[in-house]
Amino acid sequence: MLMGKLDQVKVVIVDIVKNDGSGRRDPNNAHPEGKVPFLVTDEGDTIRESAAIMMYLDEIFGHPFSIKPGDAGRGSFLSWMSYYCGVLEPAMVVHFAKLDHPILKSTFRTMAEVSEQIMSGLGDKPFLVGDKLTIADIIMASAFQWAPHLIPETPTVKAWIKRVEGAQDGAGLEAFETQAFSALKMQA
Amino acid sequence: MLMGKLDQVKVVIVDIVKNDGSGRRDPNNAHPEGKVPFLVTDEGDTIRESAAIMMYLDEIFGHPFSIKPGDAGRGSFLSWMSYYCGVLEPAMVVHFAKLDHPILKSTFRTMAEVSEQIMSGLGDKPFLVGDKLTIADIIMASAFQWAPHLIPETPTVKAWIKRVEGAQDGAGLEAFETQAFSALKMQA
Repeated sequence: MLMGKLDQVKVVIVDIVKNDGSGRRDPNNAHPEGKVPFLVTDEGDTIRESAAIMMYLDEIFGHPFSIKPGDAGRGSFLSWMSYYCGVLEPAMVVHFAKLDHPILKSTFRTMAEVSEQIMSGLGDKPFLVGDKLTIADIIMASAFQWAPHLIPETPTVKAWIKRVEGAQDGAGLEAFETQAFSALKMQA
Repeated sequence: MLMGKLDQVKVVIVDIVKNDGSGRRDPNNAHPEGKVPFLVTDEGDTIRESAAIMMYLDEIFGHPFSIKPGDAGRGSFLSWMSYYCGVLEPAMVVHFAKLDHPILKSTFRTMAEVSEQIMSGLGDKPFLVGDKLTIADIIMASAFQWAPHLIPETPTVKAWIKRVEGAQDGAGLEAFETQAFSALKMQA
């Protein structure tokens, strides 16, 4: 949607089983474990994990929201994309599961360290990798849009989340979601 | 080492705090949380998470062990790199922590699903993305080299791990590690 390429991707709206047990394993979902998102490329490759799907779509549409291989900041960009799936997401899931286990803590640390990492990573830059909004900002901020009560009480981080939200088409996203939910209800 | 570029990377051997409490937070370690690995680029960018570091090094040395953006199989390649940090690693950590929690299970699933994913991902190909060894194989197989008792009892997966090991310089790696450990002991 942000790249203006929604007409070039076929979006299939599917139900999933939620943590509270509601929902269902949707037969229209091609994901082997019934999760979302999942992308099937024109060549029939299958891509799971949000970070990989976002990188793939950004690449095939000319890298509008990333740093190209070889360009300055590419290392930071790759680091944040892996940090999202390898650290932020597990740390957040552990937080939601209310688990306090030494092995989980020593591997992923906690949401406190995540907050510190975002703050020091931002420094005085508007976005994580520099002046340009990238999918690293979008995926990292998405966690806090999904769980706003975990937004750190740090002005730098709060302002960054607002900037990332402001750069996206909030009304368009909301309209899309409303339409998706009613499509799902009609199927059920 | 596999790319023959070890002379172009300065390797700093550091101690870490292990799960059993041994070791120490090494002042020579630039990682903000005292973990390994961590890469500082020539431009001063910092990269954390194995997947990101491997992708970065492979890219700057001409993509010898990956699929380039735009090439067939790029989607699968990105998928496996994110799957390693976002699913395999958390599922394995949860396994080691002996935790059985519905939220962890619904998010990461278990090592059984990981094994199924590797098997179906391989199909009848020698490596995960096709005929070519990539860092997706190396990072995915590394988990089982580290925890051999978790290697699935599946001939396809076992043969793949052997192929990945066979493609690496095992003797060279061992010699490097022996040297690294004695360097660490001398520091302590």
